[in-house]
Amino acid sequence: MLYSLIDILGTIAFAISGVLVAMDKRLDVFGVFIIAFVTAVGGGTLRDVLIGNTPVGWMTQPNYTIIIIVTVIFSIVFAGRLKHFRKSLFLFDTIGIGLYTMIGIQKGLDAGLLPIMCIALGTMTACFGGVIRDILCNEIPVIFRREIYATVCILGGGIYFLILQFPVNPDIPYITGIICIIVLRLLAVKFKIALPSIYRK
Amino acid sequence: MLYSLIDILGTIAFAISGVLVAMDKRLDVFGVFIIAFVTAVGGGTLRDVLIGNTPVGWMTQPNYTIIIIVTVIFSIVFAGRLKHFRKSLFLFDTIGIGLYTMIGIQKGLDAGLLPIMCIALGTMTACFGGVIRDILCNEIPVIFRREIYATVCILGGGIYFLILQFPVNPDIPYITGIICIIVLRLLAVKFKIALPSIYRK
Amino acid sequence: MLYSLIDILGTIAFAISGVLVAMDKRLDVFGVFIIAFVTAVGGGTLRDVLIGNTPVGWMTQPNYTIIIIVTVIFSIVFAGRLKHFRKSLFLFDTIGIGLYTMIGIQKGLDAGLLPIMCIALGTMTACFGGVIRDILCNEIPVIFRREIYATVCILGGGIYFLILQFPVNPDIPYITGIICIIVLRLLAVKFKIALPSIYRK
Repeated sequence: MLYSLIDILGTIAFAISGVLVAMDKRLDVFGVFIIAFVTAVGGGTLRDVLIGNTPVGWMTQPNYTIIIIVTVIFSIVFAGRLKHFRKSLFLFDTIGIGLYTMIGIQKGLDAGLLPIMCIALGTMTACFGGVIRDILCNEIPVIFRREIYATVCILGGGIYFLILQFPVNPDIPYITGIICIIVLRLLAVKFKIALPSIYRK
Repeated sequence: MLYSLIDILGTIAFAISGVLVAMDKRLDVFGVFIIAFVTAVGGGTLRDVLIGNTPVGWMTQPNYTIIIIVTVIFSIVFAGRLKHFRKSLFLFDTIGIGLYTMIGIQKGLDAGLLPIMCIALGTMTACFGGVIRDILCNEIPVIFRREIYATVCILGGGIYFLILQFPVNPDIPYITGIICIIVLRLLAVKFKIALPSIYRK
Repeated sequence: MLYSLIDILGTIAFAISGVLVAMDKRLDVFGVFIIAFVTAVGGGTLRDVLIGNTPVGWMTQPNYTIIIIVTVIFSIVFAGRLKHFRKSLFLFDTIGIGLYTMIGIQKGLDAGLLPIMCIALGTMTACFGGVIRDILCNEIPVIFRREIYATVCILGGGIYFLILQFPVNPDIPYITGIICIIVLRLLAVKFKIALPSIYRK
């Protein structure tokens, strides 16, 4: 129930981030919709394809498509006012990546994969919708350059598997993982923490 | 029989559109062939991967590969004269997207998917070869910016499912869908109909 | 045993080629790692997805991920000195594409595909990691423009199937294919052989 709500809010936040990038490139309505769609479901789709979980998730669960269509329509109509919601959107986005990382990890466990691969799948689920969005818009993916949220997903995934070693209720590591990702990302953005540079000036 | 002919003509038209974009970017022979190939079979390949229909279609049906190889050779040799066939190519291309949309819809129905997902698969089959072509050539996909043919595929798919509600011979909705897509696209190009702009000047 | 060694050296060479392109684009550590990773395993991943061999190879064999992580760390630390190893890296890379082409062909045979499709899979395994690397870095793939190594893989694959017609020990065509690819590529680079141009000046 709570998870469903987070899932919906996350999907909306991801779709809006797609709409914003697509409108910045002045795509037409169809282009805007496709970019919103791949931003929202692209990470999970890539994950499903790589583990052979087909037909991929959004095909058998039409609710995502409906949420995205409604979000795109609202976003285009109220495009001028989206900036007033920037903080809420950032929050939904952050909560979304927390949940999606854990969903990806679960799918990896269901497929019998090692923890390191599950963390890779979780990070992919949370972050690669944005990667596909940027590629379709002819940009080098922003998470390869500035954003640190992939690193946050990896850390959250690691914490999940760490807590899983202890004899606790299985919900504990799941929820702790989500909360860690949310808190770490908020801290990273608040204090402008970036990965250490590997380049000399 | 008629469908096979349309399929071949469509494959040729798609492959030539790939050759033209690739030569515009001055790719070498291998690059031109790959771009022609993904333009022709990319949409169906993406569809097959997403529904788990593997090995993907062109791997088990070598005729597509042969048609594309022959088309690429002819296109390169007669590159200077391709412009004289622009109208025929446009027609083959249009007939092709009509057929491919319906083929994609059928594959969706075979996989037990909902109509809205079948229409998505049909549109993907018809249009995403061009999307992959443009990404490989480092361009924002043209159907996200100007072309309206994805919209036409969606409309044609909708008409198909509408007619399917009536107690008619199963060929009727299929053929009507193809014809609608062809006619709508010809009208759209003739009268320069585009999606309504979502941007203020 | 020898194959394992070649596989490791090839993975290292591919990963380093990814690091070099990624650092040229000044990506952050996460971006550099992802580019190195897709360069090394992208071709095999695409092959596995297209034939339905899922979960894809690197998910069930964590050694690749570990090799790539170690390679990326070393490459970043010793970035300034990588140029001294250019010749060794080129050699490992060349030996790698020889082996990967044959591995891809074997997977195609295992999936019951025709020789022409097996050669396509072999070429894909050896070359498409670099294609995905270039797309993620927002470049037109270099093998579509200048490099001829895809052609060399196709030739090597053809020689493999040719020798397979004769009643010889099954290792012979495999090893001959690898050696042919290595020799042809070294010759092509040495004598600056490129595909014939299809453009008038």
